[in-house]
Amino acid sequence: MAKLILQSVLFQGKKQDILISEKKFSKVGQPLTERDREKAEVVNCDGLAIVPPFYNGHCHAAMTLLRGYADDMPLQEWLTKYIWPFEAKLTNKAVEIGTRLAVLEMIKSGTVFFADMYWRREYTMKVVKEMGIRAAIGVTFAENLDTPEHIEENFDFVRKHLHESERVQIAVMPHSIYLVGEKLFKRCAKIAHEEGMVLHTHLSETLKEVRDCNKQHGCSPVELLDRYGVLDENLVAAHCVHLTDCDMSLMADAGAASILNPCSNLKLGSGIPKIAKMLDSGMLLGIGTDGASSNNNLDMHEDMKLVSLLAKANGRADTLPACEVLNMATAHGAMAYNIPAGVISEGFLADALLLDLKNERLNPLHNLESNWVYAADSSAIHSVICNGKFVMRNRHVDGEEDIVKEANACALKLAGK
Amino acid sequence: MAKLILQSVLFQGKKQDILISEKKFSKVGQPLTERDREKAEVVNCDGLAIVPPFYNGHCHAAMTLLRGYADDMPLQEWLTKYIWPFEAKLTNKAVEIGTRLAVLEMIKSGTVFFADMYWRREYTMKVVKEMGIRAAIGVTFAENLDTPEHIEENFDFVRKHLHESERVQIAVMPHSIYLVGEKLFKRCAKIAHEEGMVLHTHLSETLKEVRDCNKQHGCSPVELLDRYGVLDENLVAAHCVHLTDCDMSLMADAGAASILNPCSNLKLGSGIPKIAKMLDSGMLLGIGTDGASSNNNLDMHEDMKLVSLLAKANGRADTLPACEVLNMATAHGAMAYNIPAGVISEGFLADALLLDLKNERLNPLHNLESNWVYAADSSAIHSVICNGKFVMRNRHVDGEEDIVKEANACALKLAGK
Repeated sequence: MAKLILQSVLFQGKKQDILISEKKFSKVGQPLTERDREKAEVVNCDGLAIVPPFYNGHCHAAMTLLRGYADDMPLQEWLTKYIWPFEAKLTNKAVEIGTRLAVLEMIKSGTVFFADMYWRREYTMKVVKEMGIRAAIGVTFAENLDTPEHIEENFDFVRKHLHESERVQIAVMPHSIYLVGEKLFKRCAKIAHEEGMVLHTHLSETLKEVRDCNKQHGCSPVELLDRYGVLDENLVAAHCVHLTDCDMSLMADAGAASILNPCSNLKLGSGIPKIAKMLDSGMLLGIGTDGASSNNNLDMHEDMKLVSLLAKANGRADTLPACEVLNMATAHGAMAYNIPAGVISEGFLADALLLDLKNERLNPLHNLESNWVYAADSSAIHSVICNGKFVMRNRHVDGEEDIVKEANACALKLAGK
Repeated sequence: MAKLILQSVLFQGKKQDILISEKKFSKVGQPLTERDREKAEVVNCDGLAIVPPFYNGHCHAAMTLLRGYADDMPLQEWLTKYIWPFEAKLTNKAVEIGTRLAVLEMIKSGTVFFADMYWRREYTMKVVKEMGIRAAIGVTFAENLDTPEHIEENFDFVRKHLHESERVQIAVMPHSIYLVGEKLFKRCAKIAHEEGMVLHTHLSETLKEVRDCNKQHGCSPVELLDRYGVLDENLVAAHCVHLTDCDMSLMADAGAASILNPCSNLKLGSGIPKIAKMLDSGMLLGIGTDGASSNNNLDMHEDMKLVSLLAKANGRADTLPACEVLNMATAHGAMAYNIPAGVISEGFLADALLLDLKNERLNPLHNLESNWVYAADSSAIHSVICNGKFVMRNRHVDGEEDIVKEANACALKLAGK
């Protein structure tokens, strides 16, 4: 049984010892016995503070290969002239290489889980298993792209890959209401329910989507999902930029979660989510980065701060304080994907960040939580622990230089450079 | 004559040699002669790229001591119960210590200049001279706080400290239209003109300011300054969150510059500046961080990305592309303060950042500028050069651990902890 003792780590304002065993927090702040110490690896954490890591609720990891490939242009031009032609050239190997860069970036910025909607999922899964973090790997449905055979293969995959591994879950991901029709959406929801998986989709991302839906169905995208009977606590919907008050009530009452991706929404000109109102509605909110081609990074800290700032666009500085937005990016994100993690507390999975208290932005130390949320950036992260193991130690991730080099070469080759 | 050669540094898509001499860029990309190389320090920059550093157009550096001291509450409560009582306890030494932490943070996040509006300016100036960066040190006027004698002392100081040093300029800073009346504002503008100094003020930061001004003067704050006759190219106004179309035209026609501080504006609930419209008006726009008690950091990169994102809140992804917002945070900021810098080009002052091309967020390298603006954070900054000298080298700033420790101890003592 692997045991880890984080000795003298700053937690809740004082130095404490934390015991990790069986991949969970086993003792937090209690005195450790001789037996606890037996065969444990002891890590001196003097000068470090412990906080929960990030759970990225919406991502397209392999698209990191497209970072900076095309920016600052209207959505349709961006998609049709740049993104889709590039994606058409992606191979299994490219998805693997791109995901490896993405996971490296996520680890270095404090993320230990991501929900991934993409194709060639086996290759994403392989990288996640290898690099030690968690993921909800999407089985993605898009009727305009998939043949009927492909759709059946998807369902077979879902049945076969139940409980994939302790760090990897499978999630059923119909792309959106405009790429998946009623019948298939309902089938997705049904199998997700039967197999205990999350149902994840894009929802109300752009005004065009909302207008088209109103024109075609006479209701909002959220109302459409409600009409389909798939709006329940199993649903985790990304974006939700253009919700009406009624949409918010429907989602809150149903227990459906929403993943905010404000950086991507702004960069693509999709708009600003009404965060203060969503909070008032009582919806469960998490945070995601979306893909690196639209963000252009996978830094949950940046999106977390942006969520907290945009929530205050209602003119009230007391909206969504630091501790609450931190919960949103950590515990609530984990909760949306049914992972008992994101809290430094006994019985929770041992995922954590160690912050370097010497970092200039964490000083003066009037309030660690405020400094971490509002002032710091990734440079304050000293180490990252996932499932009881270090995936980054003293800012070093195994093999990082090679990962970066390989991804750069692969992407430039695909771009024809 | 100190000479520095940056050898094989990535610039404009290819590896070039750059010669710095007499504190300026002397040769960029031209072949270097034997004479150029004579007595020059040669720095191997293989694997590094050069970009201009940041010019922070609005800051209150010493307030870094208050970072995280009070957050997430209504403005009046925040000011009267927390900020002002804490500030009342600041000594000369505390201002010096707080500014040192601020300058350290700015250097580590790529900033080589800041415009500072605060009190006890001699101590701010001392730190700037010592740490090697640039500043416009404010002589701050606030009639509600200053005695008539103090105001005269201020003017004496302005006259005496002309052309303070090659890195430090003095700027005349009437706090705002609500703390400085017509007569004093005009006197400030007059002496600034006579002495060739910038006139810097807070302007249209909150709706309350705009409403009170309309009530009291029957016009907007910008119109009031126009009426005073001080709206000209010498004026650099911070915030400008609540400008009318007419205000923007007035400022653009007058050649007055505006410094955007979106992070602070959002965090304090002041609102979102209308960036797209301001761009359309043709105004000169720079970027600032405001103080760390309201931001809560001094990271220009973060504010730069936020400006670029908020500009796209108009629904157009092609508003303010990466290269333009980078200009705003660099060359345009320098221009607002009459500093011939912010451009990597012969004849300009030798200020620069060296970026680490191994950093995961700068890869793949489809487009360095896009990666730097949209994807990176401070962890990508390898070294910082100001006035031809390294102020950070390989992420290390001389004395940084002591600066952080001293600031933390000082701030906690002032807070009574």
